[in-house]
Amino acid sequence: MSEYQAPAKDMLFVIRDLAELSEINKLPGFEDATADLVEAVLEEAAQLAGEVIAPTNVLGDVQGTRVENGQVIVPREFTAVYRQFIEGGWGGIAQSAEIGGQGLPYLLGLAVEEMWQSANLSWSLCPLLSQGAARAIETHGTDALKSLVLEKMVAGEWTGTMNLTEPQAGSDLAAVRSQAVPDGDGYRVTGQKIFITWGDHDMTENVIHLVLARVSGAPEGVRGLSLFAVPKNQINGDGSVGEHNNVTVVSVEHKLGIHGSPTCVMAFEDARGYLIGELNKGLACMFTMMNHARLGVGLEGVAISERAYQLARDYAKERVQGRAPGHSGRVSIIHHPDVRRMLMSMKCQIEAMRSVAYVVGGHLDRAHHDPDDKRRAGQMARVDLLTPVVKGWCTETAQLLTSVGLQVHGGMGYVEETGAAQYFRDARITTIYEGTTSIQALDLVGRKILRDGGQACNELVSDIRETDKELAQSGDALSGIRSGLKEGCDALVTSVEWLLANHEADANIPGAVSFNLLMLMGTVVGGWQMARAALKASEYLASGAPDKDFYEAKIISACFYAEQIMPLAGAYQRAVESGSATTMSLSEDQF
Amino acid sequence: MSEYQAPAKDMLFVIRDLAELSEINKLPGFEDATADLVEAVLEEAAQLAGEVIAPTNVLGDVQGTRVENGQVIVPREFTAVYRQFIEGGWGGIAQSAEIGGQGLPYLLGLAVEEMWQSANLSWSLCPLLSQGAARAIETHGTDALKSLVLEKMVAGEWTGTMNLTEPQAGSDLAAVRSQAVPDGDGYRVTGQKIFITWGDHDMTENVIHLVLARVSGAPEGVRGLSLFAVPKNQINGDGSVGEHNNVTVVSVEHKLGIHGSPTCVMAFEDARGYLIGELNKGLACMFTMMNHARLGVGLEGVAISERAYQLARDYAKERVQGRAPGHSGRVSIIHHPDVRRMLMSMKCQIEAMRSVAYVVGGHLDRAHHDPDDKRRAGQMARVDLLTPVVKGWCTETAQLLTSVGLQVHGGMGYVEETGAAQYFRDARITTIYEGTTSIQALDLVGRKILRDGGQACNELVSDIRETDKELAQSGDALSGIRSGLKEGCDALVTSVEWLLANHEADANIPGAVSFNLLMLMGTVVGGWQMARAALKASEYLASGAPDKDFYEAKIISACFYAEQIMPLAGAYQRAVESGSATTMSLSEDQF
Repeated sequence: MSEYQAPAKDMLFVIRDLAELSEINKLPGFEDATADLVEAVLEEAAQLAGEVIAPTNVLGDVQGTRVENGQVIVPREFTAVYRQFIEGGWGGIAQSAEIGGQGLPYLLGLAVEEMWQSANLSWSLCPLLSQGAARAIETHGTDALKSLVLEKMVAGEWTGTMNLTEPQAGSDLAAVRSQAVPDGDGYRVTGQKIFITWGDHDMTENVIHLVLARVSGAPEGVRGLSLFAVPKNQINGDGSVGEHNNVTVVSVEHKLGIHGSPTCVMAFEDARGYLIGELNKGLACMFTMMNHARLGVGLEGVAISERAYQLARDYAKERVQGRAPGHSGRVSIIHHPDVRRMLMSMKCQIEAMRSVAYVVGGHLDRAHHDPDDKRRAGQMARVDLLTPVVKGWCTETAQLLTSVGLQVHGGMGYVEETGAAQYFRDARITTIYEGTTSIQALDLVGRKILRDGGQACNELVSDIRETDKELAQSGDALSGIRSGLKEGCDALVTSVEWLLANHEADANIPGAVSFNLLMLMGTVVGGWQMARAALKASEYLASGAPDKDFYEAKIISACFYAEQIMPLAGAYQRAVESGSATTMSLSEDQF
Repeated sequence: MSEYQAPAKDMLFVIRDLAELSEINKLPGFEDATADLVEAVLEEAAQLAGEVIAPTNVLGDVQGTRVENGQVIVPREFTAVYRQFIEGGWGGIAQSAEIGGQGLPYLLGLAVEEMWQSANLSWSLCPLLSQGAARAIETHGTDALKSLVLEKMVAGEWTGTMNLTEPQAGSDLAAVRSQAVPDGDGYRVTGQKIFITWGDHDMTENVIHLVLARVSGAPEGVRGLSLFAVPKNQINGDGSVGEHNNVTVVSVEHKLGIHGSPTCVMAFEDARGYLIGELNKGLACMFTMMNHARLGVGLEGVAISERAYQLARDYAKERVQGRAPGHSGRVSIIHHPDVRRMLMSMKCQIEAMRSVAYVVGGHLDRAHHDPDDKRRAGQMARVDLLTPVVKGWCTETAQLLTSVGLQVHGGMGYVEETGAAQYFRDARITTIYEGTTSIQALDLVGRKILRDGGQACNELVSDIRETDKELAQSGDALSGIRSGLKEGCDALVTSVEWLLANHEADANIPGAVSFNLLMLMGTVVGGWQMARAALKASEYLASGAPDKDFYEAKIISACFYAEQIMPLAGAYQRAVESGSATTMSLSEDQF
């Protein structure tokens, strides 16, 4: 049950052929990142994920975490795995070499991150957050702070967290009340934070908390928020760990899933903190971390769906039940058309999601490392546009796919020991943390579409139309894929035009249509990447490349997506065009 | 959190105005079932559900059940609630008066059943199964058996179960191996059964198991299955409970949800059994029970969604977070358009599902009680057509809606103590037991559409077209609802015609398209009932009836369904028309 085989072949294909590794490979600093190196790294990571990390998944779910004497205790096996992970240098794989990382592309970092997430989602959250925190400090921290903590964080000797939420301040960070008071060359931070993932644990000797708080006299709302690095234990001048810093874990939550990941209530009481970035610009600094974290959480949707798929597929091949057309005697259930429909729907959407997430990862590498300012800006515009889509669409889709994975098992799926239920429970957090789907959808509509009058979206559409041209030239074999993509793209264009034309007349429209527009864009962009994949696969097949089975399956997968998933685009479009009137009609009492 | 207020007003509206209580009221035996009586019964049931049953829901989830000394122990509070339930005569509310029931319409029975299910799904399964078992014995049992067990079962003094599944025989009942050997005027039953809901408990002194088994020499497959009533404890000649009958509970499953419902592994060893119906006709007898049970499980989808909706709605009215267009200061989240979208999508689909389930319940009353043979057959054809739709579509939709209910709570939704997670976990069984969605979809396509060449479906469509005519006559106010219904109905017609035209050419087509066709039919029939509801509501409003708020909300709800849910019909149609080729293309190794 805990077996997991990383889909390294598909990952390599996406990295190489869709996210255009060869372009990234040309960027300064990434000259070593050849396809061969990527393949070798994926292979090594796959081994660690499958043989070391994956076997700890169930015990994390069963044992969970607990607070003992003011300290969170995680399963002992987690610590052993973590040691092996940081000794292999995996913690800093995509961090720059100057601060002790491996200096590999973020794109490759995403692929190996998917493996950790599939292997043990709960455990993987610890390095994910640590890397995000290190990145925020690297970008915005003072040199003093960097020299104090960064090397240890990148190496994974210390971990990091994000401390945003307070009981009254969830999606609404303007309501944050935690306080910071200047003290010498630093600050003293006081407040209570909730829902802090890996807020405390016993795997490392220190934890660096990134905490949003207000300095007295700061403006109200989000413009008065500053960001502080607050270590669990104080750090001596020589970098060693000193006294406890009055950072206390109050409790861990009793959750639906990710039981192996301690979700903490944290109390800070006059805890020594270091300002990160400028005063009152904390939110912007946090967003450095949050954009990566949002891509990472979107990727969790891919990863947990992949794991659920593998379990369901293996069960479907083994479980004998009933008879099927064209087969004599009882058959394994993979021969039943409706079971195949379920597996195909998982397979094609997982591949689509993976492609979109990695392609955005590739854009991010170029947005950071392309020497040309204008190209960098263009790449960043695409990253900005699609980050909420990766987060929102991949995680929403993961709800459906982990549910289908459970369904394939019939009654056994409902029994916890089978394992399908854990993936279903674990997946459920992904549409919530790092900004709910509502928040992603508002980000997409407000900041990423309306703010530039749809320009970044238009550029996306013209890239999709380029693929349409390629499909037109590729002959009849891919005509179903082409018509599906065209239909989806038209629905996207019409919906965005509708939004641009109507949003000023009614302030409720952006919010009311945002979810459907996000799902529409995800569906279309997913289909676009599957169409690109089918084009590449056709080329490989025409050239007589090896792995014929893989490329044929890729084309079938793209066909299934075009036939059974892309038609949702029209439904989303219709929902968008219905606007806000009906949604907003009822009085509170009428609900 | 455990508060539950039965939506008695909506229930009464559906019973009276959509399921046409006035027609049922004319049938022999149901003359007393007036709208006033229905209202009074609903009110009494709502009180029991809200004040007595609902408060036991969380403790059932937390305490679960266990086996002690060969006996399942359920939470003590369940037994107290059960006593109160049977003392009120609720166990036999829709059973005929001759056998000790209340003799009320099945339609009314459904409504009160929805209340028990919303209040505590786990607990409600016990009376649900007992009533089904009693119904099978009433219909197919010998007079001797009936006089031995029926009165006690209808009164609820003893409960009943369905024992179908064995480890190798889930959806595939042909593989059942349990044996029955003639012994005097009865049989001795031996075998192991799994997934037996409420297979044992300590609420009553006896449990009557309905067990599928083979008598030696019986034909292979489902045509060799016979049905036996096997009591947990033997029954003496005077009806009192005698010695243990070698029916043992081996264990209870550790499940994702419905923790308060013991899911048992049962062992029968030479246990005394009574044949029900003819030898080797066991499956047909079991289906008597199963059709009711399937409607009942479909209703569970409605009930658990309703409970999830109430929790989410109340949270959305209370939780203050962020700012919304047109409001000054921070607002409760129900003012955010995307939260409203979530609540509206729950509300309108719950109302649609309830309407469809109850309307089928009304047809079932007429199918059993109409004095006219032809009308009875017509009503039964509609029941047969829509039973798999109610089971499959309502439970699949419940997965989405309980998930949305959790989402409305943001991070709090993922914390178990909030309660939203329990509904999400509990709901997950409903697409699995009493026949998975795959089985329902195959039943719909094979037995209910292809077998009669689409006739029952055509009759459904012509009834939908009648509603279209009424909408056309009702003026512009309902034009959006009308166009939604027309579009959905066209998609249904086209899809069924496609199936009829193509299924013979490819034996995989029925299975490959079945799920999408089931969801399509559910979506359209749900929209049809919402359109009928809007017509009725308009009439009430035009006549100046009280409850203006309720009727206005009903029309808005129907509009939202037409705008945001009905467009899915086109997507399902497209998936149906894609047939089976892509679905069946991959080799096993390519998955």
